[in-house]
Amino acid sequence: MSMKAPRGTVDILPKDAAKWQYAENKIKNVCDRFHYKEIRTPIFEHTEVFQRGVGDSTDIVQKEMYTFEDRGGRSLTLRPEGTASVSRAFVENKLFGDPNQPVKLYYFAQMFRYERPQKGRMRQLNQFGVEVLGSADPAVDAEVIDLAMTVYKELGLTSLKLVINSLGDKESRDNHRQALVNHFEPYKEELCSDCQKRLSQNPLRVLDCKKDRDHPTMKTAPSILDYLNEASKTYFEQVQAYLTLMNIDFVVDPNLVRGLDYYNHTAFEIMSEADGFGAITTLAGGGRYNGLIEDLGGPETPGIGFGMGFERLLMALEAENVAIPIDNSLDCFVVATGSSEVEKEATRLVHELRTNGIQVDRDYQGRKMKAQFKAADRYQAKYVLVLGEEEIEKQVVNLKEMETGEQMELPLNRLIEELSERLLGGK
Amino acid sequence: MSMKAPRGTVDILPKDAAKWQYAENKIKNVCDRFHYKEIRTPIFEHTEVFQRGVGDSTDIVQKEMYTFEDRGGRSLTLRPEGTASVSRAFVENKLFGDPNQPVKLYYFAQMFRYERPQKGRMRQLNQFGVEVLGSADPAVDAEVIDLAMTVYKELGLTSLKLVINSLGDKESRDNHRQALVNHFEPYKEELCSDCQKRLSQNPLRVLDCKKDRDHPTMKTAPSILDYLNEASKTYFEQVQAYLTLMNIDFVVDPNLVRGLDYYNHTAFEIMSEADGFGAITTLAGGGRYNGLIEDLGGPETPGIGFGMGFERLLMALEAENVAIPIDNSLDCFVVATGSSEVEKEATRLVHELRTNGIQVDRDYQGRKMKAQFKAADRYQAKYVLVLGEEEIEKQVVNLKEMETGEQMELPLNRLIEELSERLLGGK
Repeated sequence: MSMKAPRGTVDILPKDAAKWQYAENKIKNVCDRFHYKEIRTPIFEHTEVFQRGVGDSTDIVQKEMYTFEDRGGRSLTLRPEGTASVSRAFVENKLFGDPNQPVKLYYFAQMFRYERPQKGRMRQLNQFGVEVLGSADPAVDAEVIDLAMTVYKELGLTSLKLVINSLGDKESRDNHRQALVNHFEPYKEELCSDCQKRLSQNPLRVLDCKKDRDHPTMKTAPSILDYLNEASKTYFEQVQAYLTLMNIDFVVDPNLVRGLDYYNHTAFEIMSEADGFGAITTLAGGGRYNGLIEDLGGPETPGIGFGMGFERLLMALEAENVAIPIDNSLDCFVVATGSSEVEKEATRLVHELRTNGIQVDRDYQGRKMKAQFKAADRYQAKYVLVLGEEEIEKQVVNLKEMETGEQMELPLNRLIEELSERLLGGK
Repeated sequence: MSMKAPRGTVDILPKDAAKWQYAENKIKNVCDRFHYKEIRTPIFEHTEVFQRGVGDSTDIVQKEMYTFEDRGGRSLTLRPEGTASVSRAFVENKLFGDPNQPVKLYYFAQMFRYERPQKGRMRQLNQFGVEVLGSADPAVDAEVIDLAMTVYKELGLTSLKLVINSLGDKESRDNHRQALVNHFEPYKEELCSDCQKRLSQNPLRVLDCKKDRDHPTMKTAPSILDYLNEASKTYFEQVQAYLTLMNIDFVVDPNLVRGLDYYNHTAFEIMSEADGFGAITTLAGGGRYNGLIEDLGGPETPGIGFGMGFERLLMALEAENVAIPIDNSLDCFVVATGSSEVEKEATRLVHELRTNGIQVDRDYQGRKMKAQFKAADRYQAKYVLVLGEEEIEKQVVNLKEMETGEQMELPLNRLIEELSERLLGGK
C-alpha cells in the first residue's frame, strides 16, 4: 500500500520529536563547549563523491546506496554517511584556507542505506557526527572520543564500552596488508566470494566479514598491532595516554576494523552494554582518515571524525531506563462559549497572550464548556481562562489555577500582567 | 566537476549555520507559544503520495520532482513540499484518533524541486511549515496566518505584504470553474499548451500561468469572489474579521491562486516588500485543503497549513538589514607550550573545564606561544590560560582576561571555581 511511509523509514511524531529535540539540544551544548561548529551539506551528492570518499570496495558503495539520475542525467546519491560529504564541502569551500585550524565541525543529518530493515537499522537513519580537519595531533583523536563519550554521559548512559584500535600509517598498513594476504591466500577457496574479492582489493576488510567470522584462519590472522611502525606505535600510545588521563575507560581490540576504506591510525567504536539493547550494539564509530581530503582533490589535510546513530542513542536511553525530562504542560487554555462576539474576543485574547510570551491554546471544535475543560486537562493546562457573554459585558475574565483550584475574576486589562507574573515571573 | 555540490544545492557553513540556528530557535519558540508540536517525516515518499496529495496536474508533479526507483523497484520521490507528507503521516499514524483535535503540527524540512536554480530558488530548499488538521473553524485560518506573521515580526521583518483570497467550497469552485472554462474556451488556441491542458484539468491554474499572464482575457476572467456561495462568503468574512481584530494588515487579491490542486477556502501568501529583495518576492504561502485527507485514504478531515522558505527568510532579513545576534566569542583558550607533560596537562585541563560547563579550545597545530595568542584573539577568547613547564611545576596556571588585560596566577585547583564564577556566575 503506497500511502504508507516507505519501507525502512518512519515518522517521528510529536511525542517522540520532543525527545529528539531534547537530545539534540544537549548535544549542541556539548559541541558548543568543545568549540565545534555546525555544518549542513546537501542530502545528495554526485555519486563519485561517495565512490571516492567512502571507497569503491565497501558494502555501502557496492550494495547500499540510493543512486539515481536526475532530470539532467547526473548520477546522484542520497548520502549514506557524513564524512565524504563534509570533506567534499571542506575542499569545495576552501576551508583549508581558514586561519582557524583545525576546522572542527559537527552535523545532524539523515543518512540513507538500502539494507534489510530491522530494529536499530533503518533505511533512512539519523546521525550526529563530527569531523576535525587539519590537525594530526593525537590529542585531537582523544578530544573527538571525549566529545562522543561526553554526549552519552550527559544524556545519562552508563553501560558503555569504548573499543579502540590503530590501523597505523600507510607503511604499517601496507606491511599488515601483505601479511594478511599471505595468511589468507592458502585458504582463499574456503572464504566467501566477497572475501575472495576483498583479499585483492582490501584484505583488512576480510576481518570484518560476517559470513567468514568463524573460519579458523580468522583467529590466527596477523594483528595490525604487530605491524605498526615506530611512529604509528607512538601515536597510538599517545592517544591512549590522553584517554587515560581524562579518565575515559577503553579496551584495545586489534580486530576492530571499520567498514570504510579510508581509515588509518585511530579507529574506535562505542557499544551499548545495556541489557536487552538488541543485537546491534554499536552506538557510534569513527576514526582517523588522513589522506581522504587529497583523494577528493584538496591539499594534504589530516582528518578524524565519528558518526553516532540517533535512533540507537534513543534506544540505548530506553534500554537503560533513562527518563527524558519533557514538559508536556500548557501555560493557559482559553475556554470560550457563546456568540460570535465571544469567539472574536477569545481570538483576540489568545493572540494577545501569545504576543506577550505566554503559551496558549483554545478550543476550535465548537465544544461545550465541559468538554473544553476536559481538553484543558488533557493538555495539562496550568491556567484556564473562562470567557462568556457575561464576562465580555463586564470586561472581565475568569482565571482558574488548575493545580490549586484557585479561581479569580480579573479585569481584562489586568490579565496579561497577572498571568505574566505567575508564569514568566521566575524566568 | 563532480567534486562540487550538485547544481542547485549549497553547503551551509558554520558562519551561516549559526544564523539558521538562531532563526530556528526563534521559530520553535513561536510554535511553542501557539501550542504546535513538531513532526518529522521521511525525506522520500512513495511517488503516489505526491501525485495524489499535491495533484497530478501541478507543475511540481509534472516537471519538478526527483523521482527514482529504489533497489526493490519502488517508485520513490524526494518530497517537493510538506503538506502531502504530513497528511500521509496523519492518516498512517491515525492521528485523527487523538482526542486532542485539531492536531497542530510544525516541521523544518528540506524540499527538492528540479527547477532552474536562481537566487531564492534552489533545487534543495528548506522550509518551515505548519499543518492544522481536524478543524474547520475560520479562527484556525486566522491563527495559522497569525503564526506566520508572528515569526516574521519577531525575527525583525517589517516590509511585508499579506495577500489573502478565498477559493470557496466545492460548490463555489465548481461554479467558478465552469465560468472560467466558458470564459477562456473561445480563446483556447491563443493560450500556451500547458494552459490548454489546464483548461480541462484545472482551469483555475490558468490564472497562475507565467506565459499567458499578459493575455487580454486574463484581466477580464471571472473572479472567484463573485462565485462564492453564502457559506463560503461568510467563512471568508470571518477569517478577515479575525485578522482585523488581531491587527494583521492584509489585502484581498482574487487572482491569488496557489500552484497546488488541493486548496479551498482560504489561500494566502506573504511577500517581502523590501527594496532589493529580488524578483521572487513570495516568502510563504499556504491555504486550506479540506478534502486532502480523504484523498489520501483517511476520514473526512479539514486541514490548513503553510510553507515558509527558509533561504528566502534569511534573504529578507538581509534585505532589511536585520542584524542577527550571533555570539562568536569563546569562553577560554588554553595556550600551552613545552614538553609532552605540558601537552598532557593541557589535555586534562581542557577536558576538566568542559566537564564543568566552560567552553574551551586550545592549539592542536604545535604553534609557538605567540601564534597561540593570535589564535585566541581570532577566536575572540574572553580568557586565556597559559600553561608551561614552570606553571606545571608550581601547580599554577596563568589566567588573563582579554578585555581588561588583567592577569593573575592561580593555583590549578582554584581555576575551575574562579572561571565558573566569572563566566557562568550570572547564568
